[in-house]
Amino acid sequence: MGRRSLLLLLLLLAFLTPGAATPVPPALRALSSLHLSTSFRSRPAVAMKYSIHYIQQKVDHFGFHTDKTFKQRYLIADKHWKEDGGSILFYTGNEGDIIWFCNNTGFMWDVAEELKAMLVFAEHRYYGESLPFGANSFKDSRHLNFLTTEQALADFATLIKYLKRTIPGARNQPVIALGGSYGGMLAAWFRMKYPHLVVGALASSAPIWQFEDMVPCGVFMKIVTTDFRKSGPNCSESIRRSWDAISRLTEKGTGLHWLSEALHLCTPLTESQDVQRLKDWISETWVNLAMVDYPYESNFLQPLPAWPIKVVCQYLKNPNVSDTWLLQNIFQALNVYYNYSGQARCLNISETATSSLGALGWSYQTCTEMVMPFCSNGIDDMFEPHSWNFKEFSDDCFKQWGVKPRPSWIPTMYGGKNISLHTNIIFSNGEIDPWSGGGVTKDITDTLLAIVIPEGAHHLDLRANNAFDPVTVLLARSLEVRHMKQWIKDFYASLRKMH
Amino acid sequence: MGRRSLLLLLLLLAFLTPGAATPVPPALRALSSLHLSTSFRSRPAVAMKYSIHYIQQKVDHFGFHTDKTFKQRYLIADKHWKEDGGSILFYTGNEGDIIWFCNNTGFMWDVAEELKAMLVFAEHRYYGESLPFGANSFKDSRHLNFLTTEQALADFATLIKYLKRTIPGARNQPVIALGGSYGGMLAAWFRMKYPHLVVGALASSAPIWQFEDMVPCGVFMKIVTTDFRKSGPNCSESIRRSWDAISRLTEKGTGLHWLSEALHLCTPLTESQDVQRLKDWISETWVNLAMVDYPYESNFLQPLPAWPIKVVCQYLKNPNVSDTWLLQNIFQALNVYYNYSGQARCLNISETATSSLGALGWSYQTCTEMVMPFCSNGIDDMFEPHSWNFKEFSDDCFKQWGVKPRPSWIPTMYGGKNISLHTNIIFSNGEIDPWSGGGVTKDITDTLLAIVIPEGAHHLDLRANNAFDPVTVLLARSLEVRHMKQWIKDFYASLRKMH
Repeated sequence: MGRRSLLLLLLLLAFLTPGAATPVPPALRALSSLHLSTSFRSRPAVAMKYSIHYIQQKVDHFGFHTDKTFKQRYLIADKHWKEDGGSILFYTGNEGDIIWFCNNTGFMWDVAEELKAMLVFAEHRYYGESLPFGANSFKDSRHLNFLTTEQALADFATLIKYLKRTIPGARNQPVIALGGSYGGMLAAWFRMKYPHLVVGALASSAPIWQFEDMVPCGVFMKIVTTDFRKSGPNCSESIRRSWDAISRLTEKGTGLHWLSEALHLCTPLTESQDVQRLKDWISETWVNLAMVDYPYESNFLQPLPAWPIKVVCQYLKNPNVSDTWLLQNIFQALNVYYNYSGQARCLNISETATSSLGALGWSYQTCTEMVMPFCSNGIDDMFEPHSWNFKEFSDDCFKQWGVKPRPSWIPTMYGGKNISLHTNIIFSNGEIDPWSGGGVTKDITDTLLAIVIPEGAHHLDLRANNAFDPVTVLLARSLEVRHMKQWIKDFYASLRKMH
Repeated sequence: MGRRSLLLLLLLLAFLTPGAATPVPPALRALSSLHLSTSFRSRPAVAMKYSIHYIQQKVDHFGFHTDKTFKQRYLIADKHWKEDGGSILFYTGNEGDIIWFCNNTGFMWDVAEELKAMLVFAEHRYYGESLPFGANSFKDSRHLNFLTTEQALADFATLIKYLKRTIPGARNQPVIALGGSYGGMLAAWFRMKYPHLVVGALASSAPIWQFEDMVPCGVFMKIVTTDFRKSGPNCSESIRRSWDAISRLTEKGTGLHWLSEALHLCTPLTESQDVQRLKDWISETWVNLAMVDYPYESNFLQPLPAWPIKVVCQYLKNPNVSDTWLLQNIFQALNVYYNYSGQARCLNISETATSSLGALGWSYQTCTEMVMPFCSNGIDDMFEPHSWNFKEFSDDCFKQWGVKPRPSWIPTMYGGKNISLHTNIIFSNGEIDPWSGGGVTKDITDTLLAIVIPEGAHHLDLRANNAFDPVTVLLARSLEVRHMKQWIKDFYASLRKMH
């Protein structure tokens, strides 16, 4: 989610706590709470039939004051599972409804038969139905206290031990962790911290280095910009010029009204604060397009054409036009994202992301552990300049959630760039995915591998096979399967050796 | 600590919470809270000069509801430290005052010069001066909530990152974790979970497998018994017969009085409950002797002779005597442990362990994460039969601390027997140390090594060099140094490769 959802959040919070101020953080603040996983619904050839289950998990794996439990949801699909020589593919759920992720991870369904695999999709605590305190889960920092990566990994560990104990034939089978985006980080970290439970991990589009100063804070927006620059002549330049055009237009008395009409906004802009909200909403649209710039028609909040940025850029060929003309072009471009179906009667600047993603939980996570610095300078990228201001970010978090972010904790816990001692992790990244800037894109060792997909957007490899897939993603997937098979083979070899 | 301290605890708790019941758990219950680290004060040739420091640590590394901090104490000795090619030996503090451990870990002082090492001794939270809530730290389960191995390891990780950031010349130096007993477990687990922070670990007398059903629950008492059996003819048999003798004697009207006189008890036995207390106290004395059966004079709560069990066994050569005679022999034997100095005027059955160990904290830890099953059967060992009754244990924990133990958590978290993917850990064990029964005594891989010291008691190798050291411990120490040197060398080699 971005600033729009953030504002929704703030409004929501203001509603919950009457009198609370609704601070207006800078645009880049919003980015830190961008949802990493904006998969589209795929249309797989494989029928996705699963059963739904629940396991009682400790609310707090790391403390004993409370012994409370909650129900974690998980899905199982075992059509192709074989007890003899089979495997378990374990999806490390991320910030959303697990059924939505399950339906958007066609890759696992596509390879199940070849790997004789049972598919398990584990929902992340505080998302979907897996709410530790039910409707009160997001009430305050006391109830949110157990929403951390460590607790989520402990849930996964407990679940795997439980499955092995209770499903006949599962005990002596290799488990592979798979995840995309934030879930990809979890898959990688799970292998690092619990190598006794999973033989390897496929971490797709996992920006495990988008923390502290491990990568430049501007890399994300730079990649977004490159995507637009390469998708059509003058495309990024048109967007770069649009910000000042908006400013100039809205300085005039009738500007807000004109712009509201020109962009067909559902709710007209009325005050100067709305201008920043508008810019943030437009920025996030470009960012989202970069994440989901898939090579075929796909369906997110609304349907999108194949290579949507190319379609967008058809409207942004000429930056040297008047402000009003430029903004009318911007409207056409936005319309590709928000109205490909042609059904929309107006554009709602309070919406960009599917409700299957857990906006509240993710906002809290970015304000605690998942502190990812973002910035733009307007030179290397097409956005307005925004520096990364941790102090301001931290203050906003405290106002919003009553917590203070700890930016150096994730690198302390998970090793930062010093992870070469771990084994059997594949980091796959699409080169056009802005999150690849914080990802592992070069092999670290023989068993910590990077796969780069030049035409790939956000975790394209985890999506179902598609006739329009570029050959690079097909190669990536076959490489991933080859490694997974090797892990499985190694597991059985060492099992035989033991007996 | 054992049952004695447990009773003290219960009394203390009863004092704190008037009206609270003081349940009398079975003798073996006490064992689960035995202190693992009962090092003796060594008399090193090396002068132990250190400076005392404090670092602000988060009370809760794994939650953000509280952002409170506390002062963790640590010691630094850098006399032999070299910036060029040096190293950092990091003692992962265990359940007691860090100065006491520092003074009892002569090995680190002995090897500092050879390894050009800075010595760092980190105090474990909730012990010594490192109390998260000061005097209230043990008040209730809410205050004790942050006493876990995970939090302790996170303290260590944070401290190492802090030292590397703040001590000039420390940044690019290899750190090695060292610890004994519970601290040995922490050293091993630290390498497993934070391999990016330590290049290796020396885990001395670390019973990482004394959990769930990884080893038979009777192995501990069996080793204690073997120590006594081998230290003198009929020695263990005399002890085995003593329990029934005590029972028979105290069934008579004057038995309690007679026994109180015969054993020179400071406080006479008055009720039948006292009989079990007495037996537990005697049992724990034998257990403690097995742990500290060192080859030279040493000093624990009171001075002990070299090979103290041999001395004890001189009084226990004849099991075929009358009950009163046998118990008089038992008194002589106990007197070796409690009155080697000849200064004691009576024996106090409320005391067995040094006050440098944190009895309260350790009792809580055994009631939460550190659930180690113990049992005896009176056949393979010289103790009265006691089965391991988890239900009863758990109920006692709940009564005492308001928490429920989670016996399968440690294996889930730290891998149980499935740890072969980790590297650079030395598990050293003394064969006469009862804790070796739960330790790693066979190599797991080329870099997960077991060193067994046939004549070694509890972490003898971590003690200072002594003229009476058996050659096996000298060999063990030289092997340990060789591996540590190799880790340091490998670290610098890979550092050079990177630059």
